[in-house]
Amino acid sequence: MLNAEPVPLTDVTIDDEFWSPRIETNRKVTIEYQYEQLETSGCLENFRRAAAGETGGFEGFWFADTDAYKWIEAASYVLATTDDPDLEERLDEVIDLIAAAQEDDGYLNTYFALEEPERKWTNLNMMHELYCAGHLIEAAVAHHRATGKTALLDVATKFADYIDEVFPDEVDGAPGHQEIELALVKLARATGEDRYVDLANYFIDVRGRTDRFERELENIEDIAGYDPDDGGIAESARGAFYEDGEYDGTYAQAHAPLEEQEAVEGHAVRAMYFFAGAADVAAETGDDDLLAHLERLWRNMTTKRMYVTGGIGSAHEGERFTEDYDLPNDTAYAETCAAIGSVFWNRRLFELTGDKKYADLIERTLYNGFLAGVSLDGTEFFYDNRLESDGSHGRQGWFDCACCPPNVARLFASLERYLYAVDGRELYVNQYVESTATPTVDGTELEVTQTTDYPWDGEVTIDIEATEPAAATISLRVPEWCDEASIEVNGESVSVDGDGYVSLERTWDDDRITATFEMDVTVVRSHPAVAANAGRVALERGPIVYCLEALDTERPVHQYRVDAKTDLEPVHRDDLLDGVTVLEGDAPVPALDGWEDDLYRPAEECEETTARLTAIPYYAWDNRESCAMRVWIQEH
Amino acid sequence: MLNAEPVPLTDVTIDDEFWSPRIETNRKVTIEYQYEQLETSGCLENFRRAAAGETGGFEGFWFADTDAYKWIEAASYVLATTDDPDLEERLDEVIDLIAAAQEDDGYLNTYFALEEPERKWTNLNMMHELYCAGHLIEAAVAHHRATGKTALLDVATKFADYIDEVFPDEVDGAPGHQEIELALVKLARATGEDRYVDLANYFIDVRGRTDRFERELENIEDIAGYDPDDGGIAESARGAFYEDGEYDGTYAQAHAPLEEQEAVEGHAVRAMYFFAGAADVAAETGDDDLLAHLERLWRNMTTKRMYVTGGIGSAHEGERFTEDYDLPNDTAYAETCAAIGSVFWNRRLFELTGDKKYADLIERTLYNGFLAGVSLDGTEFFYDNRLESDGSHGRQGWFDCACCPPNVARLFASLERYLYAVDGRELYVNQYVESTATPTVDGTELEVTQTTDYPWDGEVTIDIEATEPAAATISLRVPEWCDEASIEVNGESVSVDGDGYVSLERTWDDDRITATFEMDVTVVRSHPAVAANAGRVALERGPIVYCLEALDTERPVHQYRVDAKTDLEPVHRDDLLDGVTVLEGDAPVPALDGWEDDLYRPAEECEETTARLTAIPYYAWDNRESCAMRVWIQEH
Repeated sequence: MLNAEPVPLTDVTIDDEFWSPRIETNRKVTIEYQYEQLETSGCLENFRRAAAGETGGFEGFWFADTDAYKWIEAASYVLATTDDPDLEERLDEVIDLIAAAQEDDGYLNTYFALEEPERKWTNLNMMHELYCAGHLIEAAVAHHRATGKTALLDVATKFADYIDEVFPDEVDGAPGHQEIELALVKLARATGEDRYVDLANYFIDVRGRTDRFERELENIEDIAGYDPDDGGIAESARGAFYEDGEYDGTYAQAHAPLEEQEAVEGHAVRAMYFFAGAADVAAETGDDDLLAHLERLWRNMTTKRMYVTGGIGSAHEGERFTEDYDLPNDTAYAETCAAIGSVFWNRRLFELTGDKKYADLIERTLYNGFLAGVSLDGTEFFYDNRLESDGSHGRQGWFDCACCPPNVARLFASLERYLYAVDGRELYVNQYVESTATPTVDGTELEVTQTTDYPWDGEVTIDIEATEPAAATISLRVPEWCDEASIEVNGESVSVDGDGYVSLERTWDDDRITATFEMDVTVVRSHPAVAANAGRVALERGPIVYCLEALDTERPVHQYRVDAKTDLEPVHRDDLLDGVTVLEGDAPVPALDGWEDDLYRPAEECEETTARLTAIPYYAWDNRESCAMRVWIQEH
Repeated sequence: MLNAEPVPLTDVTIDDEFWSPRIETNRKVTIEYQYEQLETSGCLENFRRAAAGETGGFEGFWFADTDAYKWIEAASYVLATTDDPDLEERLDEVIDLIAAAQEDDGYLNTYFALEEPERKWTNLNMMHELYCAGHLIEAAVAHHRATGKTALLDVATKFADYIDEVFPDEVDGAPGHQEIELALVKLARATGEDRYVDLANYFIDVRGRTDRFERELENIEDIAGYDPDDGGIAESARGAFYEDGEYDGTYAQAHAPLEEQEAVEGHAVRAMYFFAGAADVAAETGDDDLLAHLERLWRNMTTKRMYVTGGIGSAHEGERFTEDYDLPNDTAYAETCAAIGSVFWNRRLFELTGDKKYADLIERTLYNGFLAGVSLDGTEFFYDNRLESDGSHGRQGWFDCACCPPNVARLFASLERYLYAVDGRELYVNQYVESTATPTVDGTELEVTQTTDYPWDGEVTIDIEATEPAAATISLRVPEWCDEASIEVNGESVSVDGDGYVSLERTWDDDRITATFEMDVTVVRSHPAVAANAGRVALERGPIVYCLEALDTERPVHQYRVDAKTDLEPVHRDDLLDGVTVLEGDAPVPALDGWEDDLYRPAEECEETTARLTAIPYYAWDNRESCAMRVWIQEH
């Protein structure tokens, strides 16, 4: 098992035409708005009132505390790379509030403090105490790493210690929504305390082995979240957990122990956080079997249950995985948070294996399934990312259950982490983003300067300066979509073979790597078993999945019929959608002549003509007036 | 304006391999079951209790009286062509019950009698008093024509007279659900009383000219069907009639006067009954403008809003027409009752115009959109007729709101009416069904014997024997799907030109007409504007629309790619689905080789192979175990 580490945020500076404006918008607009929401939604007031020992009057969803925690995490990532005293002060204020609300024994959850103090830990399934704790810990670790301060880390550690006391002796079972697992491993790494790994391991391991959730639901009147009038939150879980009157834990990946799970099942975000946490535990424990189980589940997901955008979780109901090859386009759920969760999981799998395919999938997800989740101006969000729309589906400002926007914020604010990783004397270059980084490889600090117009152009220049000449391997990811890569070091051609990384071993001093990844337009088909895409193709170029949006097409989007022979040219349009490379060409469409007043006609009498087609990047759809959109186009 | 008349039920005897078993099943199973339902559903008990002057305790939907009326109508049609003393007696008993429940002034509705006697005529929109009256009248006319008895006709006439008194002086406005209009014209024809035509004309004319429905809904607490707890039936109308808080009468075709309606809109069954009634009024009044308006609406329906099966009304919500070219397959509503209503309307349009296209559409609807509504064994029914299914959609036994099964029953029991029509000295042969008929043409009775294996074979022999030699025109419909027709009279070839009927003028004595309508397999496309069928084709042969059902196909149905060049052979299979002609062949499908563990691959690397395909008639789907089905197949 490998144990690569990402080059930390603080050692990477992104200055990229594509990503930097998005990261700036995230910092200036999204994270600011997120902060305002903490006040207007009542989230901070919950902490104030809990701190004052008040009761009742909790506002928002029962896991609203995480709004504050996710903001702290995202803002801390910003602070790690940007000097912002005002932001730092606001962070301190919010952290003080949180600390004040912590109970003497370490427990912290304002919903329970205000509403049901007597029913702590009675509804692990739905009440998300451990989920909230997990986000608190992630926020605390991020804040500590960014500022060196310990105020929040102390709160998180105290809560974690309390949880460690309670579980599994007083309370047994896994949380309904995973999150604490990966957070505890982060805490272990931040504090050096292995027992947090053990606790994470317990939560991973116990899932699918106890009847905890079933017991809770059977005694529903005795658990937190139960409302005698309508059953409340507790009752709502029944829909997710009962199928024809029979309990089924699949929704929360509790249908079987992890090692017996053959396919990715249930609520997609829960699944991603689960697998990410399990990967962390595997990294810490060196459990090769656990890694093998995760690799098996990854194969199921990527070969049978994933949209071409990297989106996952087909069904709106339950926000969940369904069956192999069930990938409807116009009703796709493909939650933004699930795409983000997939990025989290894939980074960890990469770090454990050094396998390029995980970094490839991160790229696919970042540029497509994730990026579509946020509008170009950073103010509107998709919860669900459909791959086909009649024009009636659009992004929204901020949701009641605002999980996606803060998740988007923390990924943008920590994008640096995905570019490079170091394992011993090997530096992996995983994502191509214009940036400067100062990784330490085998004890020597390198200055790595990446120059590129990615994702529109596949040329990448990487300048390496070492503080002193250093023998090291620099491994470049040849993207999965690239059929023709050429790489030179200081002008000398390097052989590019195989499916893995191109590993450049030398003593680095002051050198230049030039890589050219030919970006051809690729017409892609789905596996024949995918009914939704029968007779359809998608267009890709480089890491970008394209779509047709009716505003750009001469004919309605459903009328185009494209195949590998259709001549589509990439054209960069600075004026369009903040600057995008579009694909343009004439594509076959059915002739309208001859139809007159017919609704149905013999096919052999129908003729074909061509019409102008402009395909735009999928991530950029729904940033103008609403109109029909398709990723999967009829094949000619 | 033409004024052709159908050759009456009593003058036609169907003895056809395709239809007779269905008509028998209808008589022996469906109509019997329908009768049992009258007792078990509480329908007859409602009449008994109303007759006894009781109050409260009404059972079933508020228009449940029509269950009895529709049974009487269907049973009367049976009685017109079959000697069945037991059935006649049961009819008399039910009719006695109904007569006993009639109020002194002629009013008759057991819901109002039992539940809301003070709120008659306060909710024309939803409470269906006139709709019930219409079915009473249709039943009465059918019973009278079948038996010569007047018991029910007297009840109907008395109620109609009462309605004629009340409308429009005491109560103004049109009924929410049309039906009374066509019934009143039937009553006028049965009684010779023109004032029923005037009343029908009033109901047709006033629709879209008053704010009656809007007023009712604005004063919802004062109208029948209002329940203070949840608004009741009255409140439920709001969903259909309000769009973003604005009243919109489209659902009941009340958005504009008929002459201003440009497209078929709203609830499809209401629309069909409306237009059928309007055609009846046009026939009686000779109103050419009214006919022209109907022809305009027919053009809109058939060129923009109709499934290839003849099914209409795309949307489940509101069971209604939506927009031009909006014809989704997997969510198609295409209600069986709407298909039946379309048959009603088209017969009337034919009789007013002698235009073949209406008889063509009746054929298409009978063999496809209508016939799919009932299982082969006659015991299960589709309300909604989808054109694509993942296997989860199946027929049901009998519905709570049992409109379709009795409607199916009355159409089967009166199928004779659609075969022939007479206008002056012209006899139209509209449907090809093995049968004997004795139409009177220009004063002379002809004996017309049709022999055919339709719909599997396009050969039709028609033997004519006249009681005395008679000069007459016999006009044969050349079906719309037929490109190559040949017709002989007594072995001599007749020229078959043009798009209309082939009219054979001669002095008929003892003659034989032989027609051969070549039945080729036709691969059909939809208008390019139909997004749901983009890149897809349907298979037809003769009047039959085909589908793929997964049970018969080597590959999943979505994988087949068919075009006009695909070699598909008709094969008659006596053993299958009560005997059907299937289409068999090898059709292109994507090769499975090369996919291994890929979910997405470049199209140019994908290969094609062929797989065995058997297409079955659409009407016969879902008569075996549940599986996926498609009418519209990917085009190659």
